[in-house]
Amino acid sequence: MSDSILLPALKFDNGLIPAIVQDATTHEVLMFAFMNEEALRLTMETRIAHYWSRSRQSLWKKGETSGHYQYIQEILVDCDEDALLLQVVQVGGACHTGYKSCFYRTVDGKSVGEKVFDTKDVY
Amino acid sequence: MSDSILLPALKFDNGLIPAIVQDATTHEVLMFAFMNEEALRLTMETRIAHYWSRSRQSLWKKGETSGHYQYIQEILVDCDEDALLLQVVQVGGACHTGYKSCFYRTVDGKSVGEKVFDTKDVY
Repeated sequence: MSDSILLPALKFDNGLIPAIVQDATTHEVLMFAFMNEEALRLTMETRIAHYWSRSRQSLWKKGETSGHYQYIQEILVDCDEDALLLQVVQVGGACHTGYKSCFYRTVDGKSVGEKVFDTKDVY
Repeated sequence: MSDSILLPALKFDNGLIPAIVQDATTHEVLMFAFMNEEALRLTMETRIAHYWSRSRQSLWKKGETSGHYQYIQEILVDCDEDALLLQVVQVGGACHTGYKSCFYRTVDGKSVGEKVFDTKDVY
């Protein structure tokens, strides 16, 4: 990552940086996750999104079991250098529930998302 | 907030929940911040975005000094109920640097954002 200007300045909080993931074309926000340095390095090297799973305390290559990989088009960083925005091509859906986006409901419980696959087919 | 189905289920981590903010029309991601319960309550009541500033350790009504308010159109929640997505009408720009979005650079330092105001006019 030696050609990068901003990467050395990135601020990891307890080893993690928040990553917002959006569809590169429609700009729909697909999910929110965390990365550690290793996940970010693998993401940049392979151009496939990797995260750090806080619940499983392990590295997580998104799509490894489902095939629903996220192919990186661009990675943006915010003004404070403490959050990332990944613009991706999403295979299938981002959400394990079968929705395209994990943000498929309003806070008052209305479903607004698009279901794109049947969970029994991949999990 | 008694008419809400999902709100009681929201997971605050050390009192905070991540909030992604996007333009309600273009879906451009504008910024990333945290909310505590009070910030979320005020946001829902006033329909103007409020956050919790971790650096200042205080409640923060976005736009209070700049006039760059964020008017809430919709608040979405993710599958795990531990992250929020705010769809807003942004007055001026979201970023204190004058850019429309805080995500105005790639991780390799290329500027890709749109400057929408001169910081000397508001700060």
